[in-house]
Amino acid sequence: MFNESVSPTTSAHPFDKAIALTSLGADNFAGNTSPDYWNMIGPFGGISAAVALNAVMQHPSRLGEPVSLTINYASGLGQGPYTVTARAARTNRSTQHWVVEVFQPNTDGVQETVLTANAITALRRATWSGNDMPMPPVPAPLEVQRQTVNASMEWLKRYELRTITGKMPKKFDGVVRQDAPDTASLTQLWMRDEPPRGIDFCSLAAFADVFYPRVYLRRPSPVPVGTVSMTVYFHASAADLLACGSAYVLGQARGQVFQNGFFDQSAQLWSESGTLLVTSLQIVYYKE
Amino acid sequence: MFNESVSPTTSAHPFDKAIALTSLGADNFAGNTSPDYWNMIGPFGGISAAVALNAVMQHPSRLGEPVSLTINYASGLGQGPYTVTARAARTNRSTQHWVVEVFQPNTDGVQETVLTANAITALRRATWSGNDMPMPPVPAPLEVQRQTVNASMEWLKRYELRTITGKMPKKFDGVVRQDAPDTASLTQLWMRDEPPRGIDFCSLAAFADVFYPRVYLRRPSPVPVGTVSMTVYFHASAADLLACGSAYVLGQARGQVFQNGFFDQSAQLWSESGTLLVTSLQIVYYKE
Repeated sequence: MFNESVSPTTSAHPFDKAIALTSLGADNFAGNTSPDYWNMIGPFGGISAAVALNAVMQHPSRLGEPVSLTINYASGLGQGPYTVTARAARTNRSTQHWVVEVFQPNTDGVQETVLTANAITALRRATWSGNDMPMPPVPAPLEVQRQTVNASMEWLKRYELRTITGKMPKKFDGVVRQDAPDTASLTQLWMRDEPPRGIDFCSLAAFADVFYPRVYLRRPSPVPVGTVSMTVYFHASAADLLACGSAYVLGQARGQVFQNGFFDQSAQLWSESGTLLVTSLQIVYYKE
Repeated sequence: MFNESVSPTTSAHPFDKAIALTSLGADNFAGNTSPDYWNMIGPFGGISAAVALNAVMQHPSRLGEPVSLTINYASGLGQGPYTVTARAARTNRSTQHWVVEVFQPNTDGVQETVLTANAITALRRATWSGNDMPMPPVPAPLEVQRQTVNASMEWLKRYELRTITGKMPKKFDGVVRQDAPDTASLTQLWMRDEPPRGIDFCSLAAFADVFYPRVYLRRPSPVPVGTVSMTVYFHASAADLLACGSAYVLGQARGQVFQNGFFDQSAQLWSESGTLLVTSLQIVYYKE
């Protein structure tokens, strides 16, 4: 059964091409990894989060807009096709609980799980609202130098990044940073898609994973790292995001703890005008 | 197939009875809601998180110790039996990805999803470690007044809580608190099981949900609330937890944003001696 609404987009933007899914009927979708968002040995984790969320967004039974997404990176994705299942495990009056899984065939052709995810969508109503995490005082995007791109990671060319504080160390000398705990692993940066693209839930899921590994800032040592799980909460509506257009997003990330092979990263994303759009927590493997 | 290692414990502690699961073979377990941890109209969310994690802990194929748990509260649990499925979707050399689902029959006897969860377990190795979220300066547990128990919520009788700052408001007058953003929704409290019980991964999962809804502190108004998703990262080993015995745990929680029906809660749990054991993020529905 082919459903036009879930066919790959013809838009020229590489992000839309990278997250495009074709309906295979019922809860099943087909997609393909994109060389445009390639990291070192697999896709950029943020684009995989966007793919998982896109399966929910494209599902004809979806109720409301995303509130929560958790993605678990079970295995490195290989280059090539994958299938996605997105199942509404529970549909309530105003909330819906999604179970998502991404599969790729192994060398014997057997389908194996490469990602698992959960998402919650909801019909939201206007209520009293308050922000206890206001945007920190930072210079405007164009007052901050644009980051030059590390050509070895293709996905970085898909983002315009302007780092205010907490740049990637230039020397990986293993010297542990001894700043105050609340800034020792802090990065703040302006970001947007390159070329610019209207902000939506899928691009926010990817933005939440844009930060380089906190352990590299805290202790610059070239150890292998990889996110194992990321949770993203969305605090804006589709209409709010539409109003943002393709403006910059301010991202902030810090580690809370680095302990025996895993560290966490607490992150926030604000719209250029100061609305808190996303809060996120992820846990990352590191070696040694 | 009956497996002694997954049979309900005979321990007298109500926590162990509440999370007890009986193996039904393969990935399936049977459990029962406990009146000892009853909230207003269903079980305390923390005990349900502990049940989901316990299915992974009891699974004969488990590799390593918990690193991450995400639980999604798809529906209120009803009083009575439930079944749990815990499936290792992917087993790597040192990490394992679990997909968990809890079912209860509806009034027509049809099994419906009431909870979904993901967990990651891992074999951890000693590495360089650092803590960017040191325990805040607080008085010792016994210097803080013990909270009297609200008899309408049975589960609260299962915890000894000593709140340092951010007590539940006495007057629900709807007046929005205008403190500095970083303390306007902050609670810090000492907690332990009542009666005391050795800290383990399951009890930590429950501790992470002990905090009353942040919106009640920020804007004391008696609106309906309910956690829809909670993520818990574990930063200690089973051996570390064993060394804690049944000492107090310091909990800290604050909201980052309250927006159109959902607020988030960022939380940390430290051992009494100051080790950061858990970091957590949850998102909670609120009405009006």
